Amino acid sequence: MADPRVLEHARIVVEHSCKVKKNDFVMIVSTPEAQELLIAIASQLGRIGARFIVIDNSPAVMRAYTLQADDDTLSTTPRLSIAVAKEADVIINLGQFTASNLQEMSDVPPHKLQLSSIAWRPVSEIINTKRWNITLHPTRALAQEAKMSFDAYCDFVYSAVIRDWPKMAAEMQALADKMAATRTVHILGKDTDITFSIEGRKPLVDSGEKNLPGGEVYISPVDSTVEGQVYFDLPINHLGQDVKGARLKFRNGQAVESSAEEGADLLKTLMAADPGAGRVGELGIGMNRGITRFTKNILFDEKMGDTIHMAVGHAFPESGGTNESAVHIDMIKTMKEGGTILFDDVPIYANGRFSWE
Amino acid sequence: MADPRVLEHARIVVEHSCKVKKNDFVMIVSTPEAQELLIAIASQLGRIGARFIVIDNSPAVMRAYTLQADDDTLSTTPRLSIAVAKEADVIINLGQFTASNLQEMSDVPPHKLQLSSIAWRPVSEIINTKRWNITLHPTRALAQEAKMSFDAYCDFVYSAVIRDWPKMAAEMQALADKMAATRTVHILGKDTDITFSIEGRKPLVDSGEKNLPGGEVYISPVDSTVEGQVYFDLPINHLGQDVKGARLKFRNGQAVESSAEEGADLLKTLMAADPGAGRVGELGIGMNRGITRFTKNILFDEKMGDTIHMAVGHAFPESGGTNESAVHIDMIKTMKEGGTILFDDVPIYANGRFSWE
Repeated sequence: MADPRVLEHARIVVEHSCKVKKNDFVMIVSTPEAQELLIAIASQLGRIGARFIVIDNSPAVMRAYTLQADDDTLSTTPRLSIAVAKEADVIINLGQFTASNLQEMSDVPPHKLQLSSIAWRPVSEIINTKRWNITLHPTRALAQEAKMSFDAYCDFVYSAVIRDWPKMAAEMQALADKMAATRTVHILGKDTDITFSIEGRKPLVDSGEKNLPGGEVYISPVDSTVEGQVYFDLPINHLGQDVKGARLKFRNGQAVESSAEEGADLLKTLMAADPGAGRVGELGIGMNRGITRFTKNILFDEKMGDTIHMAVGHAFPESGGTNESAVHIDMIKTMKEGGTILFDDVPIYANGRFSWE
Repeated sequence: MADPRVLEHARIVVEHSCKVKKNDFVMIVSTPEAQELLIAIASQLGRIGARFIVIDNSPAVMRAYTLQADDDTLSTTPRLSIAVAKEADVIINLGQFTASNLQEMSDVPPHKLQLSSIAWRPVSEIINTKRWNITLHPTRALAQEAKMSFDAYCDFVYSAVIRDWPKMAAEMQALADKMAATRTVHILGKDTDITFSIEGRKPLVDSGEKNLPGGEVYISPVDSTVEGQVYFDLPINHLGQDVKGARLKFRNGQAVESSAEEGADLLKTLMAADPGAGRVGELGIGMNRGITRFTKNILFDEKMGDTIHMAVGHAFPESGGTNESAVHIDMIKTMKEGGTILFDDVPIYANGRFSWE
């Protein structure tokens, strides 16, 4: 019998996040380690009267394939995945973040991973037009990465995931409304002084719909207006490798300098994937104060209270973003000590508090 | 590192069975227990330059869904699976026979399994027009069902799978050629005296292409000509339940009586699925003398030397078979002691030997 929290997690994914209804066709991307959650989701889908298919994207399988395949093969359009995505009404992704070894892709040449990522882009574009959700099922590997016992990590995950989402949505909408009335964002902090316009762009709220846990307000800035420098203190894992202490400098919207205390080469490779990979695709403000610690997992870390994150690469068309790229590289900055966010020169956040707190 | 026999198994599936070539799109149906073989297959596909997608059909997931879903839902066309099957050039099925618990579906009402089976039929029809293979990866559950240790079971599986397939193909073709020149088949044995025409039907040889292990010559009889009675001594597992000691009596091609020493109700339910479920779809002659023991697994048992099997239900169009049904229920009979097969009244097999042996 499953942990009752797994059953509740499944119910939230199916009902709250994806609003699955009778006769919906659901594409589930999964991995063997997520099977307990997958079983609970299948039960929910049966109850509702939806149909589903499970696509297995185990890293060990992808690694074996990617190591052997040549560049031409890796660049081929994934026609089978496109066929499923097109037919689906809803996409639930349990596989991207659930793993038994987060280092499984660590010995695959980065340019091969990049080719795979570019080839996958048409699938992502189709998925973006549907109802979709990304969540994870706790594993020992994820607990290890978070420097936690497995039991404590399960508690952490379910505290972040099983929440009063309608209430959180209202809190986040208040910030989004202020953002909608803002022309220029200015962020100050350690080694950071960066400005950009968000005029005409639409702030979005993730209240556990697209990501579970949710808990962020995010927007795609007018990428051509990004000016200044920014330092992201928190490490983030891209394709199995850490990028830590990234520093970026922008001029006329283009990253003109990049460095990192760790993983600088990977960051440069990713940011050279295509012209859009060196331009800002996202500003996000973490609002989930239920996530109280950094666990080296972007699905949770970017929602943490008292942080911001920015991504270079693909922007969100639903926010009005126009930057296009095969990559979307999130980077996180803690704001509690010395960070300030100004909306049209008025501080909205400073010294660990929002202006209304 | 995988058992080298797993790597060789993967090579046989990809090269010999499915003849995968560069730019082929491969749909793999799998289950977490088959991951070791799946990884080896992914590596082969990468080397060749094919693309693939993995569909997970874990019994535990299907059980959770099927228990909750109502009959209407279970009868819905599986549009997502159809979309993938249509786009695929090759289908490799590791999932149907590989399981960690062969009893996983044992508490699902049979009529629900039957509805699922009927709904799946359009997918099977598409798959039948492509290159396809069904094989399995050894598990402890399969070893237990075979009453063997896991190590001994692995030896058994690889002895059956890793063979000189071109040599076996020649031996089987010799029997197929005799069958092609035959009008009437007559089978005699314990509680068995059955005749039918195979005139105009095409004998088929499975030399490890569609099934791995292969090792049978099979044909779809002219189903309207089946007359007499037949006793199948070996138990077979359908949807997690045993049918043992089945006795069928045919008149004008239609089963007019059915009984079984065990599982008679399931057999009756399956044979009532549709009008074609009570008519003969297949006669097969097991030719793989590398399979030396009965393991309660149809993928192996029906290829065993000195056995025949017949199926009621769906016939093979590629053999000229016309009987249509959502089910295909194989039943096996040992022939070594007292069994005789006559082609146009001439014994081709008697007392454990073919006429040329």
